[in-house]
Amino acid sequence: MISFENDYSTGAHPRILEALAATNFEPASGYGTDRFCASAAERIRAACDDPVADVFFLVGGTQTNAVVISSLLAGYEGVIAADTGHIAVHEAGAIEATGHKVIALPEHDGKLRPADAAAYLGTFYADETHEHMVLPGMVFIAHPSELGSLYSLAELEELSALCRRYEIPLYLDGARLAYGLAARDTDVTFADIARLTDAFYIGGTKCGALCGEAVVFPRGGMPKHFLTHVKQHGALLAKGRLLGVQFDALFTDGLYDEVGRAAIDAAAELRRILSEAGCTFFRESPTNQQFIVLENTQMEALAERIRFSFWERVDDTHTAIRLVTSWSTTADDLAALEEALAEVL
Amino acid sequence: MISFENDYSTGAHPRILEALAATNFEPASGYGTDRFCASAAERIRAACDDPVADVFFLVGGTQTNAVVISSLLAGYEGVIAADTGHIAVHEAGAIEATGHKVIALPEHDGKLRPADAAAYLGTFYADETHEHMVLPGMVFIAHPSELGSLYSLAELEELSALCRRYEIPLYLDGARLAYGLAARDTDVTFADIARLTDAFYIGGTKCGALCGEAVVFPRGGMPKHFLTHVKQHGALLAKGRLLGVQFDALFTDGLYDEVGRAAIDAAAELRRILSEAGCTFFRESPTNQQFIVLENTQMEALAERIRFSFWERVDDTHTAIRLVTSWSTTADDLAALEEALAEVL
Amino acid sequence: MISFENDYSTGAHPRILEALAATNFEPASGYGTDRFCASAAERIRAACDDPVADVFFLVGGTQTNAVVISSLLAGYEGVIAADTGHIAVHEAGAIEATGHKVIALPEHDGKLRPADAAAYLGTFYADETHEHMVLPGMVFIAHPSELGSLYSLAELEELSALCRRYEIPLYLDGARLAYGLAARDTDVTFADIARLTDAFYIGGTKCGALCGEAVVFPRGGMPKHFLTHVKQHGALLAKGRLLGVQFDALFTDGLYDEVGRAAIDAAAELRRILSEAGCTFFRESPTNQQFIVLENTQMEALAERIRFSFWERVDDTHTAIRLVTSWSTTADDLAALEEALAEVL
Amino acid sequence: MISFENDYSTGAHPRILEALAATNFEPASGYGTDRFCASAAERIRAACDDPVADVFFLVGGTQTNAVVISSLLAGYEGVIAADTGHIAVHEAGAIEATGHKVIALPEHDGKLRPADAAAYLGTFYADETHEHMVLPGMVFIAHPSELGSLYSLAELEELSALCRRYEIPLYLDGARLAYGLAARDTDVTFADIARLTDAFYIGGTKCGALCGEAVVFPRGGMPKHFLTHVKQHGALLAKGRLLGVQFDALFTDGLYDEVGRAAIDAAAELRRILSEAGCTFFRESPTNQQFIVLENTQMEALAERIRFSFWERVDDTHTAIRLVTSWSTTADDLAALEEALAEVL
Repeated sequence: MISFENDYSTGAHPRILEALAATNFEPASGYGTDRFCASAAERIRAACDDPVADVFFLVGGTQTNAVVISSLLAGYEGVIAADTGHIAVHEAGAIEATGHKVIALPEHDGKLRPADAAAYLGTFYADETHEHMVLPGMVFIAHPSELGSLYSLAELEELSALCRRYEIPLYLDGARLAYGLAARDTDVTFADIARLTDAFYIGGTKCGALCGEAVVFPRGGMPKHFLTHVKQHGALLAKGRLLGVQFDALFTDGLYDEVGRAAIDAAAELRRILSEAGCTFFRESPTNQQFIVLENTQMEALAERIRFSFWERVDDTHTAIRLVTSWSTTADDLAALEEALAEVL
Repeated sequence: MISFENDYSTGAHPRILEALAATNFEPASGYGTDRFCASAAERIRAACDDPVADVFFLVGGTQTNAVVISSLLAGYEGVIAADTGHIAVHEAGAIEATGHKVIALPEHDGKLRPADAAAYLGTFYADETHEHMVLPGMVFIAHPSELGSLYSLAELEELSALCRRYEIPLYLDGARLAYGLAARDTDVTFADIARLTDAFYIGGTKCGALCGEAVVFPRGGMPKHFLTHVKQHGALLAKGRLLGVQFDALFTDGLYDEVGRAAIDAAAELRRILSEAGCTFFRESPTNQQFIVLENTQMEALAERIRFSFWERVDDTHTAIRLVTSWSTTADDLAALEEALAEVL
Repeated sequence: MISFENDYSTGAHPRILEALAATNFEPASGYGTDRFCASAAERIRAACDDPVADVFFLVGGTQTNAVVISSLLAGYEGVIAADTGHIAVHEAGAIEATGHKVIALPEHDGKLRPADAAAYLGTFYADETHEHMVLPGMVFIAHPSELGSLYSLAELEELSALCRRYEIPLYLDGARLAYGLAARDTDVTFADIARLTDAFYIGGTKCGALCGEAVVFPRGGMPKHFLTHVKQHGALLAKGRLLGVQFDALFTDGLYDEVGRAAIDAAAELRRILSEAGCTFFRESPTNQQFIVLENTQMEALAERIRFSFWERVDDTHTAIRLVTSWSTTADDLAALEEALAEVL
Repeated sequence: MISFENDYSTGAHPRILEALAATNFEPASGYGTDRFCASAAERIRAACDDPVADVFFLVGGTQTNAVVISSLLAGYEGVIAADTGHIAVHEAGAIEATGHKVIALPEHDGKLRPADAAAYLGTFYADETHEHMVLPGMVFIAHPSELGSLYSLAELEELSALCRRYEIPLYLDGARLAYGLAARDTDVTFADIARLTDAFYIGGTKCGALCGEAVVFPRGGMPKHFLTHVKQHGALLAKGRLLGVQFDALFTDGLYDEVGRAAIDAAAELRRILSEAGCTFFRESPTNQQFIVLENTQMEALAERIRFSFWERVDDTHTAIRLVTSWSTTADDLAALEEALAEVL
């Protein structure tokens, strides 16, 4: 069945599979010490315009969040996030499992508002009993957010300045970063993210790879003994080449940009189809995740024709669903959706 | 350079790459709920002769050990292992990071002697103060062991009976299980392991896959909410199909056996070459890891021609090294090694 | 200076000091295996009307919450609490340090509303992705709450029924339980609490002891190997007699009730004084904590005469403060406060 | 029954009880911010001859070890200790519960030999794979050791120099420090310990207090936000005055020395009695714990007359037992033991 369920439902971009096949028999040392990882890291540093950035390859998103956050926090610190943040909801308590509290603040458009973070920090340090509370030791944001929205450059600048004032790191989850950078009205670049954050990751799994996320610590800021920390958390891939080869391919000849643009173009077409079919949008999203509200009977009828994600119950008779595009969404997929909506609505 | 460094230095067996390419564009649901994982699990149940075994796919070995062990232990329990066990030495404290002590007992031939485990448990419960100590809540073994040795069926029977007497699980790390099962004089089968243990994993990373380990809980013994536990530990792969497709291929048409046999055949040839070159063996090993002692000057000369692993310092002038075969070791590789040894020794 | 700062600012009730002195030279075995602990446990079982309740003595409140909660939750579970709950705010992340999330729901009158807990649980299990979220594995309440309020018997019945429907424990933090039970309009008794909860603790530190909290697991429900779990968390007192002697005294000749009544009587007088002085109450509280709002200049003037606790900033010119009575509050203390208020307001 | 079971079987030294009674009604702020804690800390700084030492009061020994060790280690570090060390055996995995491995080296006379620690560290850093292993981040010793033995000043100097060379802290568990300092042939003083270690604690529980251990960080070396870390581990006593008053008394007019001397004098008399009774010593100990071997029938007969601790099974017919003196051991107790031995042997 045609699927708009998510951006990780197909395998890998063909150029990644080709790169894996082409390098398959060349022996390489383990644990990320191979030439593919070295080359991929070098290409990423160039993309970020940060020649001394540290780059480390991990396997998945929840893993990356847990490993990076626990490596940057002191034991008594927690991490501020929007209450819709992936770490606050859908990671099964992975941050708490490393001993740290997620300090959840109310989201606005799926994002953490700089003013809310500033207010929390101000109130916290004004409270005489704050030594009995979890110290806010980091700010977490996702870009795009879990709801597809994007921070503006001004918002990132403001969050960055706030973190620097309090001397805590700003960490950006870029699971879908390709789609954020390729969005049509964004004013945020790779180099901005590297300049304004203290750690971020470039998503591979949801952006065309079989698996893999590239963690970047701008300005050489990787914590001491990070490899040992990664190993201790079961996140060090023996056959590190698998990640190196894939990210080397993603950052060769603009493939990462291409993956992003393809999904954004498909999302624009998807929005057109949904609008013309008269759908109500549940949230506005400039990236590859689109959210609409359907009557439950319509939803059930559509589900027989197209795969999508349940998002949340709206009321007794309506449900919000999510439709997602990716590099592998085809014109045929979109046509099939258009046809299905015509039948169903 | 020709490499005998380890069994994860090349990519994947070509039939695995083919399977990935063949299934690449078929959409699949995430997190291991796809048809490839289902098919692979079914084939593994058949191989284990346990139609109700639970099978779950994880990414790497240290991750698998940490996730499985922490899922089976109560908070106040620890795990008994040989002091050469991977979890006791080379996993950077991954077990302790989940809150559990590794109770290390002296190895014999790289293995945990059943009598030693029995003595530990007996002494423990005879000690009046044992409630102030970590309760031994599991026995961990690796098969093949970290030193390439193998448990006999009688030893496994004895360990299994001991664990059942104390009502604690027996867990087997099968990172290199293909090579253990394919070894020439072993009397242990897949079905024996499923019958005698409470959890084990079938190594993929070191046995021909790009990544992946298949955890098996015989007799339907998977802990409640294991998926959530896996997610919490950052070990749930979004694109679970990557693991499903690979293990489905490994368990189709006997590929896992073939991978094992190829490495064992190459190891036999490797032993012949080493013997005829007059090398002293550091440890006897019936599997794909071979250990020899070289004078340091010889070792350095060999290192210019062939890649291998440093194992340990023997004395001021001698070092133990490890040479490893895999499914991808070729006759040319072995010939090159033979030639290099002739030059160096 | 006269202090209404909190209920743990003086030492112990004189009858506790007498008991310590009287038993001082009698040797006793360690770790709670002494006759004082046995006697205290027996008296507590009688007070709770539960002859098979398990009783265990710990030292402090945060410790007790962390130890009990972590002993009752599976690794992948979290605990539901009001967002003003001590575990959610003022325990420095002690629950998260044991790996568990505090699932904070909005408070009402300082309490967790049964309907809110029911709604959370209902929505959770209706969400198709709930296996990727922290499982709600317990409900936590404090009685009196952190804001001095009390659950009615009907509310406790409702929470208890909810927990039993979902098969999760209801745990009650009774740091100030003496004051809750002695409150004038409460319909909740010791026996009700034992009947309706799965674990609770009887506060000693804030109710007349030097230190100590008595954890009760009704119906013999103490988790297996709880002593080892306690020891592992650094909470097992070597000289357990210190706790046994104190709780034995507290539950002899109605001392615990007497401690509660004395503070409640003093609180009634305190409320009269505050009312007559024209103070605005910040929150209504039927127990020994009283909350008023003062102009900042008044607050500063009062602080020169009487010790109290800062509670929270209300606006630019007003602050909420807390005044607390205890067993050791005297008529002279109250008269001094009345006089101070007369000068200041 | 007369007890030589341990040094925490009676209550507190009478001067401590007197101090508690004398200060009972004076209100004091919570959490160690009271004048008693301040005074006790000042007296301890004087005793250590370190005017800038940080002093923090905790409740018990296992708690103190877990809190201090976890505050000083990075997440990927472990602690080196003798394999008889309390943290390695009898703390129920409290260190592992905070995520850290105890790296146990073979004991000699109950102590960690400096040469063994040096060899471990040297071998560790020479191993090319050490980034995959737990980093040794601290050295733990107990003085007196768990077997009653004492480090010489030369041994402490050597351990201290080793730790400084590797830039890791030396931590000393002084649960029975009074008895170590009062031993007859020791050349180690309070000031030496403060000078040579990076953290240590002065035992109260086993040295005459009801409870309490005073942690000292020489040279102002307390970790940042230590109070929050303590709170997070459930170890911050609300009524901190209980610890302050006791340690203030212990360090007034030489009470701590007096407690130590009384037990050491009693231990000398105990040794004389045991020798003259013809007992075989299991271990030599210059402090207040004495170890002898008895035939099992003798042991059982003695157990009907005197309380002592089982230590370990020696062979089928013999058992090692432990007899312990304290500040509260009387001449009558010793006479009763002498008489009992005369009857039994």
